[in-house]
Amino acid sequence: MSTDLASPPKAILFDVFGTCVDWRGGVAREVALAAARLGVAVDAFAFADAWRGRYQPSMEEVRSGRRPWTILDVLHRESLDALLPKFGLGALDAASRADLNRAWHRLDPWPDVVAGLARLKRRYIIAPLSNGNVALLTNMAKRAGIPWDLVLGAETSRAYKPLPAAYLNAAAMLGLDPGEVMLGAAHNGDLAAARAVGLRTAFVPRPTEHGAGQKIDLAASDAWDVVASDFNDLAARLGA
Amino acid sequence: MSTDLASPPKAILFDVFGTCVDWRGGVAREVALAAARLGVAVDAFAFADAWRGRYQPSMEEVRSGRRPWTILDVLHRESLDALLPKFGLGALDAASRADLNRAWHRLDPWPDVVAGLARLKRRYIIAPLSNGNVALLTNMAKRAGIPWDLVLGAETSRAYKPLPAAYLNAAAMLGLDPGEVMLGAAHNGDLAAARAVGLRTAFVPRPTEHGAGQKIDLAASDAWDVVASDFNDLAARLGA
Repeated sequence: MSTDLASPPKAILFDVFGTCVDWRGGVAREVALAAARLGVAVDAFAFADAWRGRYQPSMEEVRSGRRPWTILDVLHRESLDALLPKFGLGALDAASRADLNRAWHRLDPWPDVVAGLARLKRRYIIAPLSNGNVALLTNMAKRAGIPWDLVLGAETSRAYKPLPAAYLNAAAMLGLDPGEVMLGAAHNGDLAAARAVGLRTAFVPRPTEHGAGQKIDLAASDAWDVVASDFNDLAARLGA
Repeated sequence: MSTDLASPPKAILFDVFGTCVDWRGGVAREVALAAARLGVAVDAFAFADAWRGRYQPSMEEVRSGRRPWTILDVLHRESLDALLPKFGLGALDAASRADLNRAWHRLDPWPDVVAGLARLKRRYIIAPLSNGNVALLTNMAKRAGIPWDLVLGAETSRAYKPLPAAYLNAAAMLGLDPGEVMLGAAHNGDLAAARAVGLRTAFVPRPTEHGAGQKIDLAASDAWDVVASDFNDLAARLGA
């Protein structure tokens, strides 16, 4: 089938949090359950936003070299332990904290993701290229039926996006040149970093990733190689 | 469904060359084609055996630390370049050598493998734990329809089996204790190394891996946790 591109890529790698799965809704759902079990009233979406708000700063400690390689499960847990008292949830016990931390392993895909990826998989190698660790991404895929060919990302690259090594090591592990690999993401900044080191780019908007009042990443900020409305449209545009 | 085990594992990782795929038949097939194009008569099975004969020595240079980390595609290519003149195939050009080296990416699974793994995947995380590099294992799986959840192995562990780190790093990347992971293999030595660091073990014989006169690994040498006749039997014994 024809594609939007003169020369299509061989592999399509995807950002995961926000692009493939609804982290805000999934985390809020599990925070609300944990709070209810404690009998505490909490703004679960505010908690999800605060937890995610510590995501970039926590990875920056690793990116900068101030901290040795540390997987996202550990960073998530440290952020969780810091936030719980601020939301009146400091009484949550260790087992409940460990379970709540795994809410990130149990996020639901947006409705178009599994069907679109199943189509893309027929023609392309598909894998996550996420800052999530391998266990997180594997458990998420098993639960949700996301049909990855393999799991790549910060942990296999040993570098957090948007560092160049995160993208380049993933391409190298596939034995591909950067130009043979496409990143699919809902975040213009991720695509800019991927393009800067030679990857192809596909933008898929997720206008409610941050809730109804989202102000960022509502549309493509640059002339990405492909702009699609969702993963089914992406598959169609890539001839899959 | 019931299993042979009181407490089944969460992930089953598989040796690939010999256990999942017929490397000898696949390599011989492609060597024969390359020789025919050159108009040279060659014993293609002898070539396959000689190529595989350099496998352990080439990895031992890396295991010992005498050589920095090097993926199997590179080791295979060096062995190929050394062997071609000995078989009268020194005239093979660079493009043909690169293509022949990728014969290892195009090996066929034994007939029970894809069906057995599809069953196991419903209940367990399944992945290769192979000395093959990620690109080799990914391309092999795409071509043959092997339904891995993810691709693990020497390259993601940065250690060649049977070094302990090869097994332990794979379990750690899945966020699992060694005892929650089972290795499936046709090689008693691989299983012994896995058991020594706490993994569960499953033996599946491949009595023609080395041809009709095979003398090794015809049967289980130890009381492995599971002994199955093929991957379908393994799935049945593991309740999948």
